[in-house]
Amino acid sequence: MSYNILADALRAAMVRQDRDGIRHILNELQPADLAEFVRQEGAASAQQLLTYLPMDERADVFGYLEPDEQLEIAKDLDDLQLGQLLAHMNADEGADLFNLLEQARQDAILRGMAKEEREDLRRLASYAEGTAGAIMTSDYVVVPADLTAREALDQIRLTAPDAETIYQIYVLDEQQRIAGTLSLRELILAPPHRRIEELMTHEVVSASVDTPQEEVAKLIARYDILALPITNGGDRLVGIVTYDDAMDVAEAEATEDMHKGATIGKLEGGLRSASLATLYRKRVGWLVLLVFANIFSGAGIAYFEETIEAYIVLVFFLPLLVDSGGNAGSQAATLMVRGLATGDVRFRDWGKLLGRELLVASALGLTMGLAVATLGMFRGGPDIALVVALSMVLIVIVGSLIGMSLPFLLNRMKLDPATASAPLVTSIADASGVLVYFGIATAVLGLPTPG
Amino acid sequence: MSYNILADALRAAMVRQDRDGIRHILNELQPADLAEFVRQEGAASAQQLLTYLPMDERADVFGYLEPDEQLEIAKDLDDLQLGQLLAHMNADEGADLFNLLEQARQDAILRGMAKEEREDLRRLASYAEGTAGAIMTSDYVVVPADLTAREALDQIRLTAPDAETIYQIYVLDEQQRIAGTLSLRELILAPPHRRIEELMTHEVVSASVDTPQEEVAKLIARYDILALPITNGGDRLVGIVTYDDAMDVAEAEATEDMHKGATIGKLEGGLRSASLATLYRKRVGWLVLLVFANIFSGAGIAYFEETIEAYIVLVFFLPLLVDSGGNAGSQAATLMVRGLATGDVRFRDWGKLLGRELLVASALGLTMGLAVATLGMFRGGPDIALVVALSMVLIVIVGSLIGMSLPFLLNRMKLDPATASAPLVTSIADASGVLVYFGIATAVLGLPTPG
Repeated sequence: MSYNILADALRAAMVRQDRDGIRHILNELQPADLAEFVRQEGAASAQQLLTYLPMDERADVFGYLEPDEQLEIAKDLDDLQLGQLLAHMNADEGADLFNLLEQARQDAILRGMAKEEREDLRRLASYAEGTAGAIMTSDYVVVPADLTAREALDQIRLTAPDAETIYQIYVLDEQQRIAGTLSLRELILAPPHRRIEELMTHEVVSASVDTPQEEVAKLIARYDILALPITNGGDRLVGIVTYDDAMDVAEAEATEDMHKGATIGKLEGGLRSASLATLYRKRVGWLVLLVFANIFSGAGIAYFEETIEAYIVLVFFLPLLVDSGGNAGSQAATLMVRGLATGDVRFRDWGKLLGRELLVASALGLTMGLAVATLGMFRGGPDIALVVALSMVLIVIVGSLIGMSLPFLLNRMKLDPATASAPLVTSIADASGVLVYFGIATAVLGLPTPG
Repeated sequence: MSYNILADALRAAMVRQDRDGIRHILNELQPADLAEFVRQEGAASAQQLLTYLPMDERADVFGYLEPDEQLEIAKDLDDLQLGQLLAHMNADEGADLFNLLEQARQDAILRGMAKEEREDLRRLASYAEGTAGAIMTSDYVVVPADLTAREALDQIRLTAPDAETIYQIYVLDEQQRIAGTLSLRELILAPPHRRIEELMTHEVVSASVDTPQEEVAKLIARYDILALPITNGGDRLVGIVTYDDAMDVAEAEATEDMHKGATIGKLEGGLRSASLATLYRKRVGWLVLLVFANIFSGAGIAYFEETIEAYIVLVFFLPLLVDSGGNAGSQAATLMVRGLATGDVRFRDWGKLLGRELLVASALGLTMGLAVATLGMFRGGPDIALVVALSMVLIVIVGSLIGMSLPFLLNRMKLDPATASAPLVTSIADASGVLVYFGIATAVLGLPTPG
């Protein structure tokens, strides 16, 4: 049955307080769908619904909610309930939620936990946001190298219920370093008497707790693996990051890059849940900065005041010439920034890419120059047509090269190349465009040079 | 050992034609890394290296290459070799490569295949690009409902070597419809004598062969599942899409959206491998279109010629005012477009979001109005300060509302909301900005209305 039908049925059952009906529908709903329902209905009904579920399913649904939604529901739980919920959630998600609680609440919850649980939570909660440590889980499966495949499978049966995934299995040496790995698939297909050490792969791709999350996501995508083992600064295995977390990270990174490209700061949670004050704060900075960046274009126009007064028709072509440079530059910058983010191009390719861009931009400029020349002919005669066509070619080339180069320059200045790429390119291209256009006009039309 | 060290060693071993050395290093390299090496070294050494590997590993490495790289190597293989390679590749990747071959080559390869293989390949290759059918594989695991857990595990042991994943297992009824599903984890943890029908989940999330790829990727991410079952138009199971394909789709979709947002058409393969002619074609269309869109701004300026001649200082503020509207609008459009793509917001939320945007944009406009008022005071006195401040507030609000609305409008016109969002918003906001600015100036400064 589709989600919408079940959701309607659930809503109706809640209204008539039909406890059996509610239980029956909850059984049919996927955890992700139940989370969606809880999100739509708000914290009060969430509270009520979650009590119908056993603790592990409750924790499962909880894991699908956004941090702000989790907090909203957590407010109404007492310390004991919240502690149990945290203990049943995936270790990484539990630690994230724990980090959002107030200090007093954190202490109260830790006091109610068993020593081992407490230390696990404390450790996972201690990693900096944005690192592998902050998204890893400590619930992974380890088997000794000297077991047979059959013995290993038996051991996994005993330990698996708590593991986040049992599909990738790790083998440690005496120093708790990763000695090898094998998949559950390999284990199952292997002859039962073969030893793990003969079955495992020795070359293991791993990352450290400090590795940035986007690197982790890239490794998981590159090697098509279900989970990436994470080591402490040294070689000791301390956790794993699973593919589903990598998918979330990749999506969040793409969103962040798109937002940055439009001068919007990093939004936790998205447009829907962001407060008005947050949206204002994340947007105002660059907007004001760009106002001042655009002073240069204005100053350029003011500088050529006499040229404009002599041929006021030039103003008609100003927006379309200047914007064309910005548009071509935004294209180049976007291609570059996304290529860098996906690993398709690297910084060391810049020289080659710039050469290619010069050729492509010349072809684009010539096409657009032709288009605008006919317009210029019609509106201002042959002289103006020549001026606008020449300007267009040059402006598009200059804009494109700026767009191609700015991401590299930002990277050199230790800034994210995605930062404000398109609007910043546009502002710089605008100012250059004004100078190119009126410079060419002054020369071709034989006007006195200003100043 | 790291990839770079192994790659250097491999290069050296190839130069001294040390066959044992090559074999040893190939053993240590991950398939994805070997694909990277092959990519860097080119088709000739790829040919040489791949002969060292057994056919299934060769197919594995091949699967990590981009389509154009696969084709390059496929050129040098005879029909028999290529046929074997296709048969050993993952069914979905094999079908993709098959589709890129010339008709004559396709026929030759099909002739050399066993009937079942041939029909499988033909069927998978027949689905339209961009659909679930085009990325699904037919190598999934099915077990009968009446087996015990132990019997099912034994059966999977026999059939698994060919399956793309054995971690999600499907149960079919007599009409080949999906009756249920269970994970390998559930199967392994279950008591050996329990029957599959008691263990399986009846509610199965699925999609059809016609479902767009991005929908499939969203379902896999939403439900955190390893594989999504795909049905033919009716209810019959015909394939599965695995999480790693979903990750690739999500990345490609994000890239496509970013490119579209900067008026770049869909690039197969990325910036690095695109030809100059392709880059030109994918960029020129919108650039020329936007030239004509910007005529309106030029016409607006020309219309207010007398206002400008009376107060030439107004031109100084033109770029920064007009661009501010475009920048604020781009922010709003980008928030909207990305929110729609990730499912964070929906089209039906538009009214509410527009109201919120009005408030945020007013606050942004006031801030930027204040900034520009001091600049106006300094450069043109109190009258000019008033004009530019008022204009800024209004331009930012108008630009933001255009940015928020354009994605909805495009969707209504059955166009992708990501299409050209930022530059199109900028062009429209520019033209509105010119009218607002000079309109306010004419009124406040008591100038005669033009026309």
